[in-house]
Amino acid sequence: MSGEIIKLDASIICCGNTVGQKEYEGPLGKLFDFHCTDDRFNKDTWESAEGEMQRIAFNIALKRGSFEYSDIGALFAGDLLNQCVGSAYGLLGCNIPYFGLYGACSTCAEGIMLASILTTHSVFDRCAAITSSHNCSAERQYRTPIEYGGQRTPTSQWTVTGAGAFIIGDKNAGKVKISAAMPGRVIDKGINDANNMGAAMVGAVCDTLTRFFKQSNTRPDDYDLIITGDLGHEGAQIMREFMEIEGYPLGENYTDCGILIYDKQRQDTHAGGSGCGCSASVMSAYVIPSIRKGIIKNAIFIGSGAMMSPDMIKQGNSIPAIGHLVVFEG
Amino acid sequence: MSGEIIKLDASIICCGNTVGQKEYEGPLGKLFDFHCTDDRFNKDTWESAEGEMQRIAFNIALKRGSFEYSDIGALFAGDLLNQCVGSAYGLLGCNIPYFGLYGACSTCAEGIMLASILTTHSVFDRCAAITSSHNCSAERQYRTPIEYGGQRTPTSQWTVTGAGAFIIGDKNAGKVKISAAMPGRVIDKGINDANNMGAAMVGAVCDTLTRFFKQSNTRPDDYDLIITGDLGHEGAQIMREFMEIEGYPLGENYTDCGILIYDKQRQDTHAGGSGCGCSASVMSAYVIPSIRKGIIKNAIFIGSGAMMSPDMIKQGNSIPAIGHLVVFEG
Repeated sequence: MSGEIIKLDASIICCGNTVGQKEYEGPLGKLFDFHCTDDRFNKDTWESAEGEMQRIAFNIALKRGSFEYSDIGALFAGDLLNQCVGSAYGLLGCNIPYFGLYGACSTCAEGIMLASILTTHSVFDRCAAITSSHNCSAERQYRTPIEYGGQRTPTSQWTVTGAGAFIIGDKNAGKVKISAAMPGRVIDKGINDANNMGAAMVGAVCDTLTRFFKQSNTRPDDYDLIITGDLGHEGAQIMREFMEIEGYPLGENYTDCGILIYDKQRQDTHAGGSGCGCSASVMSAYVIPSIRKGIIKNAIFIGSGAMMSPDMIKQGNSIPAIGHLVVFEG
Repeated sequence: MSGEIIKLDASIICCGNTVGQKEYEGPLGKLFDFHCTDDRFNKDTWESAEGEMQRIAFNIALKRGSFEYSDIGALFAGDLLNQCVGSAYGLLGCNIPYFGLYGACSTCAEGIMLASILTTHSVFDRCAAITSSHNCSAERQYRTPIEYGGQRTPTSQWTVTGAGAFIIGDKNAGKVKISAAMPGRVIDKGINDANNMGAAMVGAVCDTLTRFFKQSNTRPDDYDLIITGDLGHEGAQIMREFMEIEGYPLGENYTDCGILIYDKQRQDTHAGGSGCGCSASVMSAYVIPSIRKGIIKNAIFIGSGAMMSPDMIKQGNSIPAIGHLVVFEG
């Protein structure tokens, strides 16, 4: 059968992250490990800055766990840039076996999932999952360069300048356990508004979450936190409506990484944050530490990805999406 | 330790592939399952044509093994296009858990490797690895649209219009065994000529192959075939020189997918074929069937990927590359 829950015996040993100035000024600002006031990270181009963010986030995670590069069996890395160059250039020189991923904003969850499967089965002792996005590199590759000053619609999300790294080992290696995962299926609900990614992704996220509840015989109330990354304000509201129709209404324990990272009133980010770096930074700086401290006992994280490219939208196609689910326990 | 051989107990159950007219006219033409005389595959855009090629290749493989979509536990898919849309759109509607990959031309080897690891450990009964490239979509995203008629240098390779699908199960499921793999590391040797990908990728391929020979205590002569995908004529020649320096000279048993797919004299493809679809089509149509028939007893396949994007080259960066290695046995 296709589409079943994958049982895992892995854990998160430590994390690292880095963000830009806007994210530092947001509600979670103080929780991030490192930020750069001009978002340039001492590099000449936005693309190189994004790569540098991955390098910094990974090195912070390594230092936190007192690891060397040679302690990491494999890297699972990806980003939003054409040909995923943030990861390939950012992680150059590590000399670690490298698996390049592309899952749009779901890449963080995809990487954690694959790293967890491989450590559960002792293929590697330790793996790292690393992802990033940068507002300025994403805007010019996904939409228009920010210098154009293009107007944004109310449903549009703000690409996060951020990177997160997760070092994953077997179940005894870290305090935050990864007990299950459910990879998503690519689903297209016919949305073709590239400024409403939240709506485009909800169908795929609901598909995964509903399958998970059915197969695990659990309900939303059984979890301290259900967090998507990143549907934003618009998508999260539709998510609540869809899950109610499916018979699994989401309560106060549901939120979204794109909602948490910015202050809606103060920061002018419209429907909230998005980008591979959004869930990577929020999960590594806020959710995983909360589980480690016992504030949250268990959590479902569903990374959501819009799998289009600007060319496909210009050619009149709608937006396929995916939702990858991972379960964390304290 | 980082960078060791991964022992596998998987096998290739069946394959499928599809190519364009130029590939059909090449030396391996008669071996391909399906070709389209105008390279459009009944679609309005080159990007959609590439997706359609993945869909056709996958469905041919399924039919050959008498499988339904629901028999496949997970897809590992990727391509060269921005945001990997060939795979996401092409495989829409399969309703199969989907892992998006990006490894440039090494994606075929990366997908086979991950699918083999997951079936070896019974995470899934069966997985599929699917990749593609299309000359016209790749030219306009990687270089310039073909309508411009840009001149090509002698070291440039010709992006193959092709797709290949591999259905992978445990060691008893198919005749062609996958006994070991070694994921590559991202290595940048300072080459910045985007028209000489072969030279840019050789360093990473040699790194993986040399590590493999050392750790497995084997030599080139121990294998009926050592095949890279895709260094082309230029890269393969440098490969021979580098491996001789490393103490592992390659003999008559070494070749490259990019060399095999076109007739150098007759087809004006300069340094040979490249693109995710090159190794995917050559491996699925020629190498794997040759192992199944007993013509080749064992083979090392090293997928090589140039992990740059056009933007990174324009910004003055050199080309990082990777080489993923898989061992097949009859």
